[in-house]
Parts: sequence; C-alpha cells; structure tokens
Amino acid sequence: MRDVAIIGIGQTPVDEHWTTSLRHLALDAGLKALKDANLERVEAVYVGNMLSGTTTGQEHLGGLVVDFLGMAGTEAMKIEAACASGAAAVRVGMMAVASGMSDLVLAMGVEKMTDTVGQQTTAALAMAADAEYEVSQGVTFVTLNGLLMQRYMYEYGWERKDFANFVINAHANGKHNPNAMFQKEISQAAYERSPMISSPVGLFDASPICDGAAAVVLAPMEYAHTLSPAPVRIKASAVATSPLAVHSRKDPLALEAARISAQRAYEQAEIEPDDLDFFELHDAFTIMAALSLEATGFAERGQAVRMALDGEITLDGRIPVSTMGGLKSRGHPVGATGVYQIVESVLQLRGLAGETQLPNARLGMAQNIGGSGATIITHILEAMG
Amino acid sequence: MRDVAIIGIGQTPVDEHWTTSLRHLALDAGLKALKDANLERVEAVYVGNMLSGTTTGQEHLGGLVVDFLGMAGTEAMKIEAACASGAAAVRVGMMAVASGMSDLVLAMGVEKMTDTVGQQTTAALAMAADAEYEVSQGVTFVTLNGLLMQRYMYEYGWERKDFANFVINAHANGKHNPNAMFQKEISQAAYERSPMISSPVGLFDASPICDGAAAVVLAPMEYAHTLSPAPVRIKASAVATSPLAVHSRKDPLALEAARISAQRAYEQAEIEPDDLDFFELHDAFTIMAALSLEATGFAERGQAVRMALDGEITLDGRIPVSTMGGLKSRGHPVGATGVYQIVESVLQLRGLAGETQLPNARLGMAQNIGGSGATIITHILEAMG
Repeated sequence: MRDVAIIGIGQTPVDEHWTTSLRHLALDAGLKALKDANLERVEAVYVGNMLSGTTTGQEHLGGLVVDFLGMAGTEAMKIEAACASGAAAVRVGMMAVASGMSDLVLAMGVEKMTDTVGQQTTAALAMAADAEYEVSQGVTFVTLNGLLMQRYMYEYGWERKDFANFVINAHANGKHNPNAMFQKEISQAAYERSPMISSPVGLFDASPICDGAAAVVLAPMEYAHTLSPAPVRIKASAVATSPLAVHSRKDPLALEAARISAQRAYEQAEIEPDDLDFFELHDAFTIMAALSLEATGFAERGQAVRMALDGEITLDGRIPVSTMGGLKSRGHPVGATGVYQIVESVLQLRGLAGETQLPNARLGMAQNIGGSGATIITHILEAMG
Repeated sequence: MRDVAIIGIGQTPVDEHWTTSLRHLALDAGLKALKDANLERVEAVYVGNMLSGTTTGQEHLGGLVVDFLGMAGTEAMKIEAACASGAAAVRVGMMAVASGMSDLVLAMGVEKMTDTVGQQTTAALAMAADAEYEVSQGVTFVTLNGLLMQRYMYEYGWERKDFANFVINAHANGKHNPNAMFQKEISQAAYERSPMISSPVGLFDASPICDGAAAVVLAPMEYAHTLSPAPVRIKASAVATSPLAVHSRKDPLALEAARISAQRAYEQAEIEPDDLDFFELHDAFTIMAALSLEATGFAERGQAVRMALDGEITLDGRIPVSTMGGLKSRGHPVGATGVYQIVESVLQLRGLAGETQLPNARLGMAQNIGGSGATIITHILEAMG
C-alpha cells in the first residue's frame, strides 16, 4: 500500500450563498485545490455530498462536477455518509491513490442548503437518522441532539451553561478565519440567553444551515515532495459505524463508533491521543463536541465539559479544538464539513492558519460524524514539509 | 496493487416488492453473498444506490445496511453515480482491497422504486440528467432516450422495428432466469405493437421500474482460492464520464464515456473485444444497447442494429449480450443494476448460469451506464476456478 499525501487544498467561504449554485460552489473549491497543487487535471474526482438529490433535485453529482471542472472523461462519483460524506470522499480518494489505481485525485465535499428547490432543509437532514424507526416518529436532528444533551446533563450533573466554552472557543477562533460564516465572538452571557430550539439545545449549541465546498488533491507520498513544497501525509484513516437509530445503541452517550474509529486511527499512526497537536472535532452540537472528546480518549466519561471549563480546548490548552472555528463558527455545510476539517488541518500543518496558527503543529486529527454518531471517520495528518 | 477476486455473490429476485423494504432487500442480497463466501463478517460495506433519499426518505444507507446486516461497527458508505451506482460501489470495494486497506469487502447495490414515500419515480430518475440545463426544460429519462433513438434512426436509416432483436434476445434469455422480473418471451409482433411512450421509444424499448438488491464479496486474489472453489478475478475496472447534459456532448450518439471506459478496460486486461465470451451491456433502452455495442468496439457506427438483426448478440452469436435477461427482462432497479450485471457474469464464469449457460465462458465484460451516457463503468471478469 502506497502512502498518500495531500498536495493541494481549496475552499469557498462558508455562508448563505443565495446566488451561487451547487455546481459553482464545487467548481470554486475544486479549481482552488488544483491551483494550489499546480495541476490542471487529475485522474479521478470523488464528491462528498449528502443532500443534492433532495434539496436541489440533482443526483449524479460526480459526473456533473467533473464536467463543470472542465475534465469530462475523468472518473467521478458521489460518496454519501450523511454529515460524514466529506471525510468519506477523502477516504475513497485515498484508497484510489493507495491502491495505485490512480495517482492524482481530487476529493471534495459540497453542500447547498439554502435556496433549495425540494424538501425543507430540516426534513432533508433528518434522512441521516433512521427513516422508519426514528423520523417516522417525528424526530429531527435537533431533537435527537436535545435528547442526548438532556441525558448527559442528567447523568453527570452538568447545567446547560457549563457547555458554553465549546461555543466561546469555536467563535474566538473562527473570528480570525476569513472563510468562517460567523467571524465574531460569542460571550458566556450571549450563549446563556440564546433562544431555546429543542431543550436543552439552544441556538448557540447548534451549527448553522449554510452552503460551502472544500477540496483536497491527493498524490502518492513517494513523489509528493516533487509536486508540493509542504505535503501533508495521511497517517491514518478509519471508519466505524453504530446503529443509525439512537435507541439501538447500548449506550447512547458512548459514541462507540468514534471510539472504534479513533482507536483504529491511533493504531495505524502508532500514536497516543496526547501526541496530537490539535483535534478538529465535529461540533455540530455542543453535546457532540463533548461526546467525541470522551470517545476519542481525551476525557473520562462525563468529563469533557470539565475540560472545556478548565480551558483545555483553547489554542494554548492541552488539546486545541475547532482551531479555525469548527462547525459552530466556520459553519456546517453537511457533506462538505469533513473536507473543511481536513483543509483547515492542512493549513495548521503548513503553518498558514493565520491568527490562530498553533506553534510547531506537526500532527493533527480530524473527525467527521454522520448522523447522531452512526458513521464516524477519523483522519490523522502529519506535516512533511 | 493487489489483484482482487469475487468470492461470493447474492441477489434478490428483481420484482415489484411491495411488501419488502429497502433495508430488507439489502439484507437479503448481502446475507446471500456472505453465505456464498462462507463468511459472517467483512471489514467494509459499500452500498450503491441512487434514489433512497428521494423515494424512501433515507440517506446514510451505508450505516443503515451494515447495522441491519448485524455488522454495526464495520466501515460503510453509500456510493452514487446515477444508474451506474452499482458498478461504482464494486469499484470502490475493489480499491479498498487492492490498496490493502481492507481484505474482505461487501459491495452491493440496492434500489427501491415501488411503494415510494417521496418523489414520483420518473421525476426522481430524472435527477441523473442535468437538473438546471435539462430537467428544468421538462425532459425525463424516457424523452432523452427517445430523442437519441430518433436521431439514430434518422442518421442511419433504421426503423423502429429493426431494434426488436435486442428485446427478443433479452427476454429469450431472461425467461430462464429465476431472478428476472419478466420470465417470458417477447415476439417481434408484440414488440412492434407495444404502446408508444416517448416516440420512438415504446413500452418494450424500455426497462421496467422495479426493486432489487445484489451483492458481491471481494477478497485479495492471492488467497481467494482458499476461500472459494471458483473465484472470479476482476481483470479490469475503469470509469469514464461525459457531460450530463446531452446537448453538451460533441456527438450525442457516440457514447464517448463508454468508448474511453472500455478502452481503458481492454488495456488493463490486455485483450481485444473479440476475446470476450459475453458482454453484459446496459440495455436500459434499446438505443442504449445499440450505442454501447458501437462505443465498445463490437460494431461500426450505426451498425449495432445490423448486429442484432443478424443474430450476433444471441447465446450462440458473435458476442452474447444480456445472457440472463439484461435490464429489459431481468429488470433495472437502478442503483443495483451494475451489481446484478456482475453477479450474472460470475454465474456465467462459474458455469452456473443454468439454461443460458455459455460453453467455456472464461472472460466476460459488464458495463454499467449512469444517465444517458454520462458515467460509464466497465469491468472485465475472468474465471479462475
């Protein structure tokens, strides 16, 4: 198996792009990544996306995007794993290069959630949950996270205000990210008075509905240095799953798939959690940020909120998270999010993360979560520049 | 790169499964394939599907299927390339094994087109075409194929009745396939009097709307013999694309992506078209059968209809096609079709194709087409038993 490196990155700003179509978002991110890699073409394009069929009436996104990129003829397909579609596309791209079936690959994620022509966005997002066992009972994604957060507070004795630092940290970092949707700080007081959506999930516990696209170019590590001055090696890639329906999991607060996925990634990379310089986690909701820190080995059960309260997740903390805003401040265009996490990780590892650059960042982890914890994909990235 | 073999196959009958859900279809085919391979688990599951979001309100199909198969924890994702989703899933599975990232993989296709809760099926299928450039103008998949067939007849001087042998051959073969939707013959007269749908496409020029699932288990060739008495090697796998919108193609009758995809496959396998013992082509419409025979090198432009008239596509002809009924008679559950083609090819190569078994079949090709020719995936399979 060949080692695989990231030699180019591209992203659109995350925003409500009311006047930009799905294909134009993909074009923008794809061209930027190709330019960053000094390439005009690749051999295959893998497009991560969850909602194009239901929100824009367009499937067959691989063929659409590759043609719009001016590369008709080239291999293309769409990869879907709910909100983990982006990382799934990167993983498929990695398999293509690792196997030798392709040398140069573009893996991207794109999502168009505003200006939809089809299903209403909240209903479309619920397709990440179990349609027959959960959605038919009336749950949405916000209510599922509300139930998990409520149980967590009950089980471990935390109050809603104790979760604030996940949001404060994300926005303090996202404030400096020119591609973030919300480039402003949020205070403890603002968090506490944010309107309730699905108790105890308030507006500021949840990531926004938005549009965006991000892309990476992959190449064999063995000659990545000849193509890029600062290649980033994909040191580990792992996927694990749990049942879609939360009631089917032995312990809804355990994020078992995150634990397995991270464990596999640590073994592949031969590292311990403490070796990581940062962790781009999937803070679609504050409760997901907490649960993923616990499942990946950074905190004991019920203690991730304590980590946040103690300042351990900030840029100078034990394990910096959401260093460029995370899903909460940068935004969460669902099928693109996993690629944004990886693009931002590459920026950190290249030393190009701007105001929120971590000193001497060499090893980072990005974890992308589909559904309320059903598909979890972990990548560990290493600076080789 | 490791050679990859198919060591297990499974399929549900193709039918209108009004009382069987999407997940149950996937379960049925998946368990059969695992049983055929004498396995209880695999390391990854790739699910080809086009329509689950729009017709059943369910995305995140990878996680759903892997859990329902009793393998929660295992890697899973959904692969989409319109009607070529099935072959795309097999290709991703092949990449996983070829790279060494997994050893044992289940690749499947599943589609539920009847008993839909969401969008009407014809509208959902149109998502394989360009939503902004074509579908917004009112085209459906049938009308696009009608336009292509009309142009072909005008260009080369054929009449509609000249296409009959594609249908007669498919049904003559499908009659003997216990998993085929239509196990009965169709006569020249019946073809000619079939009701017009979108001129000149009549009812019997088009494949049916139906439900089904098919699956294959993949393993490294190097130890496939220890797992299966009759492994089938994937000798070539290639994807090529053309613009989704037919008007964007230089020559709408050329199926350029089929030509490139087949050419790449012939090069990988180091064979000529005449070396093949059979060709499972994508006869979603009679015009697609004709165009794909021309693009893959079996007939000159405009002459595939002549091939059919001359009996060259029957079981004892120059290149047998649709040997177990093809999309027309076996049926076309869109995201599953590419896997059905491969499962049937394996049956031929194992000598288990029943009444339509070809003598000494050692080398076969399966070609899966997404959209009206936009994504085309070709696999060449070789008997190793």
